[in-house]
Amino acid sequence: MSPIYDRVALIGLGLIAGSMALAMRRAGLAGEIVGTARSAETRAVAAEIGLVDRVVETAAEAAEGADLVVLAVPVGAMGAVAAEIAPHLAPGATLTDVGSVKRSVIEAVAPHVPEGVHFIPAHPLAGTEHSGPRSGFAELFDNRWSLIVPVPGTDPAATERLKRLWEGMGANVEEMDPDHHDLVLAVTSHVPHLIAYTMVGVADDLRRVTDSEVIKYSAAGFRDFTRIAASDPTMWRDVFLTNKEATLEILGRFTEELFALQRAIRTGQGDELFDYFTRTRAIRRGIIEAGQDTDAPDFGRGTKARS
Amino acid sequence: MSPIYDRVALIGLGLIAGSMALAMRRAGLAGEIVGTARSAETRAVAAEIGLVDRVVETAAEAAEGADLVVLAVPVGAMGAVAAEIAPHLAPGATLTDVGSVKRSVIEAVAPHVPEGVHFIPAHPLAGTEHSGPRSGFAELFDNRWSLIVPVPGTDPAATERLKRLWEGMGANVEEMDPDHHDLVLAVTSHVPHLIAYTMVGVADDLRRVTDSEVIKYSAAGFRDFTRIAASDPTMWRDVFLTNKEATLEILGRFTEELFALQRAIRTGQGDELFDYFTRTRAIRRGIIEAGQDTDAPDFGRGTKARS
Ligand SMILES: NC(=O)c1ccc[n+]([C@@H]2O[C@H](COP(=O)([O-])OP(=O)(O)OC[C@H]3O[C@@H](n4cnc5c(N)ncnc54)[C@H](OP(=O)(O)O)[C@@H]3O)[C@@H](O)[C@H]2O)c1
Ligand SMILES: NC(=O)c1ccc[n+]([C@@H]2O[C@H](COP(=O)([O-])OP(=O)(O)OC[C@H]3O[C@@H](n4cnc5c(N)ncnc54)[C@H](OP(=O)(O)O)[C@@H]3O)[C@@H](O)[C@H]2O)c1
Repeated sequence: MSPIYDRVALIGLGLIAGSMALAMRRAGLAGEIVGTARSAETRAVAAEIGLVDRVVETAAEAAEGADLVVLAVPVGAMGAVAAEIAPHLAPGATLTDVGSVKRSVIEAVAPHVPEGVHFIPAHPLAGTEHSGPRSGFAELFDNRWSLIVPVPGTDPAATERLKRLWEGMGANVEEMDPDHHDLVLAVTSHVPHLIAYTMVGVADDLRRVTDSEVIKYSAAGFRDFTRIAASDPTMWRDVFLTNKEATLEILGRFTEELFALQRAIRTGQGDELFDYFTRTRAIRRGIIEAGQDTDAPDFGRGTKARS
Repeated sequence: MSPIYDRVALIGLGLIAGSMALAMRRAGLAGEIVGTARSAETRAVAAEIGLVDRVVETAAEAAEGADLVVLAVPVGAMGAVAAEIAPHLAPGATLTDVGSVKRSVIEAVAPHVPEGVHFIPAHPLAGTEHSGPRSGFAELFDNRWSLIVPVPGTDPAATERLKRLWEGMGANVEEMDPDHHDLVLAVTSHVPHLIAYTMVGVADDLRRVTDSEVIKYSAAGFRDFTRIAASDPTMWRDVFLTNKEATLEILGRFTEELFALQRAIRTGQGDELFDYFTRTRAIRRGIIEAGQDTDAPDFGRGTKARS
């Protein structure tokens, strides 16, 4: 493939930016990839492993002369980084981000975007529980969705170009409105993460059930929660603080349902429980048919057929 | 290995019994394995795939002449099956079960156990979201824990023999008191399952977030919950009805914590969220170090490095 952008600047060099660098390189989508991160340590690791073509010291320097600038820092840091790079953005350049929340990123970044720069928010729905400059891999976005969340008045040609980049990195692309994005993600990602963190926190707190028992016997279901709850604390703090409204709305629904099931347990309503547990199976089938997860028992984790 | 039991009778031919049959065969632990299930259909499938050496019509017939009888039916069915087979149990035989709850199984089964029969409850902490006679595999118990929950006055030699069987099937064995078992499992398995069912139910209910969106964008975290919530409805109904007390206790702790985090989100207490999310990472490290899960990103699911 011929390059889609001559120079891509990655601001932040963690899981998402690193995977983007490797995916762009795999398909030859960028003439040059410049990257920077907040800490000297991350920049040194990125340089050492050759994650990008050139590591620079500051976000301003990275943005200089780039025709695509990607904000790949925690959601709560987007506004400050945008303010820092704004004077250095080239006219006609595209500025995008990969933040997990969209309404608040748009509110924080849009005011800084200079005339003539195309600001096109995006969010790849792909990740793992690992983070940092060594965690990226080229296949992260393959067959995953990347959502483009255009703001009013966005140039269609610039949007089309960014879409081609994501497709070149392996993703399927769809457009979505920011508020709808934030609600859908509250359901499919944010509240599930909060619940997993909570359950792991409860287990950690229980003194009668010692840590070592929780760990030893985790394979019975709990260990799946611990994977999710091992995700980056900064990233998730920012997600909950910036997607407060949708998170609280879905949490409200969740506790309402949980209380109904709790009452069914307390009062011994077996049929109600049975019906509830039957209904939820259909969604799993849908996910497998849509190619969004494996049907191998237990995700096929570890050796081929190990629980 | 030379056989530990001459004739093993499996009552129920689902995931656990099927995996036991294959694991016993792998290591030559049983002279003969006889099996039965409630429905003619399951018995026919078991016979067709040669899951056990001999399929018989009734639980009574299976128990006849066996030196080990394994109750591998849903927890709520254990008492009735025990009553049915009791008159057919050979003196000196061992009767065990694999139920996910122990106090209530002991209460339901123990009264039926004839003099001279060793009743030794057990629970292998291994499973997948699949069920039925085709879902078993010989490796299910490898490096997993199997808990033996002796009742007062149990013969140590009979217990030792059952332990050797579980070890021969690949498991690590430990003894535990029934009430402690039910509490530990409420934390590591029962409440996580209830929460996963609830979250999937909430997603299914939301009409603004259409089913297809929930499915399409599930890879962001939600799909892990759907795997757990695809587990057998009968099994889980019975677990919650029979482990009511511990489930409700742990649920109470869970909602208490969830409300604290919810308040932290509502009032913008970022430091509190950050600290909470940092603390839960340690448990994940412990689980990986204990060899109870893989450190591969996203459980290494699907193709090697795909999210
Ligand atoms: N992980 C996922 O599953 C996932 C999925 C989709 C989208 N996202 C979004 O992608 C973005 C990046 O996430 P990630 O998983 O790549 O995170 P990551 O691996 O933790 O990397 C974050 C990067 O941001 C930099 N950074 C952190 N705080 C900063 C600040 N206050 N100012 C400037 N730079 C800062 C870090 O620099 P240092 O290394 O020098 O600290 C690091 O290079 C986030 O907005 C997240 O919401 C994540
Ligand atoms: N799955 C797990 O993760 C897991 C892990 C550890 C322990 N356990 C425990 O192991 C036991 C079996 O679970 P499983 O996963 O093997 O279940 P499964 O695959 O659904 O198999 C259950 C078996 O029990 C039979 N059965 C169901 N209801 C019955 C009734 N009322 N009377 C007599 N037989 C009945 C079924 O017969 P038909 O096929 O003819 O209906 C089937 O053969 C349960 O007590 C469960 O709590 C399960």
